[in-house]
Amino acid sequence: MKLGLLGFGTIGTGVYELINLNKGQFQKNIDEKSVITKILDRDPTKQVKDPDSEIVTDVDVILNDPEIKIVISLMGGMDFEYEQIKAALQKGKHVVTANKAVISEYFKELTEIAIENNVYLRYEASVGGGIPLIETLKEETRINRVNEIKGILNGTTNYILSQMTSEGADFDEALKDAQAIGFAEADPTADVDGFDVSRKLAILSSLAYGGIVKDEDIAKRSLRSVRAVDIEMAQDNGYNIKYLGHSYLDDHDFYGTVEPVLFKQTSIMSHVHSEFNIISITGDIIGELQFYGKGAGKDATANAVVGDVLYIINAMKEEISPKPTRFKNRIEKMGNGGFTGSYYIRVNVDDNEMLERAVGKIDTIAGRKELVISDGHFFAWTRPVDAASMNALAKEIESITENYFYARIYE
Amino acid sequence: MKLGLLGFGTIGTGVYELINLNKGQFQKNIDEKSVITKILDRDPTKQVKDPDSEIVTDVDVILNDPEIKIVISLMGGMDFEYEQIKAALQKGKHVVTANKAVISEYFKELTEIAIENNVYLRYEASVGGGIPLIETLKEETRINRVNEIKGILNGTTNYILSQMTSEGADFDEALKDAQAIGFAEADPTADVDGFDVSRKLAILSSLAYGGIVKDEDIAKRSLRSVRAVDIEMAQDNGYNIKYLGHSYLDDHDFYGTVEPVLFKQTSIMSHVHSEFNIISITGDIIGELQFYGKGAGKDATANAVVGDVLYIINAMKEEISPKPTRFKNRIEKMGNGGFTGSYYIRVNVDDNEMLERAVGKIDTIAGRKELVISDGHFFAWTRPVDAASMNALAKEIESITENYFYARIYE
Repeated sequence: MKLGLLGFGTIGTGVYELINLNKGQFQKNIDEKSVITKILDRDPTKQVKDPDSEIVTDVDVILNDPEIKIVISLMGGMDFEYEQIKAALQKGKHVVTANKAVISEYFKELTEIAIENNVYLRYEASVGGGIPLIETLKEETRINRVNEIKGILNGTTNYILSQMTSEGADFDEALKDAQAIGFAEADPTADVDGFDVSRKLAILSSLAYGGIVKDEDIAKRSLRSVRAVDIEMAQDNGYNIKYLGHSYLDDHDFYGTVEPVLFKQTSIMSHVHSEFNIISITGDIIGELQFYGKGAGKDATANAVVGDVLYIINAMKEEISPKPTRFKNRIEKMGNGGFTGSYYIRVNVDDNEMLERAVGKIDTIAGRKELVISDGHFFAWTRPVDAASMNALAKEIESITENYFYARIYE
Repeated sequence: MKLGLLGFGTIGTGVYELINLNKGQFQKNIDEKSVITKILDRDPTKQVKDPDSEIVTDVDVILNDPEIKIVISLMGGMDFEYEQIKAALQKGKHVVTANKAVISEYFKELTEIAIENNVYLRYEASVGGGIPLIETLKEETRINRVNEIKGILNGTTNYILSQMTSEGADFDEALKDAQAIGFAEADPTADVDGFDVSRKLAILSSLAYGGIVKDEDIAKRSLRSVRAVDIEMAQDNGYNIKYLGHSYLDDHDFYGTVEPVLFKQTSIMSHVHSEFNIISITGDIIGELQFYGKGAGKDATANAVVGDVLYIINAMKEEISPKPTRFKNRIEKMGNGGFTGSYYIRVNVDDNEMLERAVGKIDTIAGRKELVISDGHFFAWTRPVDAASMNALAKEIESITENYFYARIYE
């Protein structure tokens, strides 16, 4: 079987090593040898180690090659990759991708085009890197009504939080470190402002709840305002701060957020560090399931991609037709209004008057369980409030100072 | 589709509710309604809620019913269930079972009989209750060489340890509590002496390492000697005690143990409580994956059983033939000799002379990092030693007193 590869970056190289260079056990477990024959890359002089493969610079050379049955699309970005995935499906080629942006944005359209052309579209690596999740989630929904998903889904921010915890580093410093070792991009927006997580959460939520949820249906709060003092104060009170994607379905009402959350140090979530991800799903029959593993990295992500390739090769051999993914449930997008909890709040204050005004707002809008006044800032722990009240409170604090941070306490 | 059910206990009732009484979404996700028509139970007067089903007391009424295509075997025990599973497969019926004893003892024979008769034998619920694991493990081994498995696999002992931790209860008391609420059997041997865990670990190890590993190839240490003081001392030093199944493959050498282990409170494993299970597998490409969920309980386990039934119904519809499970790797069973670690040891002593003798043995055989002498007992923390040395040391301590406990410290 001949395969085409679009994109020869880190993950693409990992996939090439597993398939063409015989790393791992992939070739041992298929009857007919499968190789990537053509690789799309901008640089035609790039060397490939397997003489059965060549670099091409024109995507159509791959899409119009009748011998290539499966296209592995690992480019990143949005418009160009979307167009190529669509074109490949329309030309009757199976597609495996890790592109969460494309899948979350065009989920319904692309899954339908795949079915119309009787080909597979697989995207296991788009969420949770190497963690086997998409098929498991689909399986569980065949018996369960899944009503809640939560997860640490972004390796970059989790690495930053781990560094801030272990090194006492501040956010900017930890971000720079992450950029220096290639864990964060030059423009870190997608990671630290929640878009990466919300896309992954949108994919999982759409599958779990059986109706399309998009990136923009999920309320996002940036992680940028977290400081070393917050990590420290949380730890002193028995919590670790994590950047959480969290959604639930209450009848037809969908609530979804990406936000910093305080987890008790006696919880599993609080001990997921660096590039590791965890995803929790809760069903009405099975209860809570959690899946943990590497959410990023060359080999782990390539493993998920090649797993999808293997699935398609087997399905082709068995002549099993792909099944439609159903998104027919009515889902009302309710933002984050449904989340209720106590909050941890830190506000930097210049003087006593600022302090009194800010504390006054907290007392009035949320109620206060505890207050710790320190040098230049105070820490408050609120009573349980809904997200709408907390949003209103944040606005009031924002009018006093921009230098503050708050996070929901997960109970 | 007509199904037969052998055994109408807790899990059998849960399966019946999901399939015949329309709890959950099972029926929604198959084209043709499937019902359990015949249920094997000793008591012919037992009532069933669905008029399409009846109680039978003779297993042959089910096995000889040509309309029954799938037999769900949930009886427990060994010989009788083994015979019925074998007979059902030989009569060309697909079998779903949760019986870990039968599967671990007759793994190769039963999987081969299934293939000879072109039927499926599925046993997802035999390990980790509701956690979707067996298929995932099989999938991962198609790309990865899996070389390590560890897990908290027994709900009863994990409940006992959780109770001892939260209530400060001693082992016997916590065991009695567990028996009173039906979490432990009248004869708790299988749970507290490690047989339940070793059977589950044998099944996972056989699949992961591609060669038959049996219950008896795994070194087992009972949990009975753990005391409230051990839990407390571990906690004071930042550890929780867990009852761990742990195996690894070093080239062809297999090491497997079931034993109490101290996990750091900053680890995920240390926060898995009560009836929850966790399983960690490590592959050469994917790295470590962990799966967490309910390892016991009616609904969660029934969910896994019905998931297997659903798989078979779909495979029958698609006319996909079952594939053989390969156990062709050469595996040398090495006991527990390969495990090295520091150990926590508690020894009860009557007088100073006993104390000096016991401490002397520890110093000589294992080396000592720390010693805490308390009223009537002492606690020691050893330097890293291999399991053979620790076994030798335990024998020496045993010759001084029977009242002692030790556990490996997981690093």
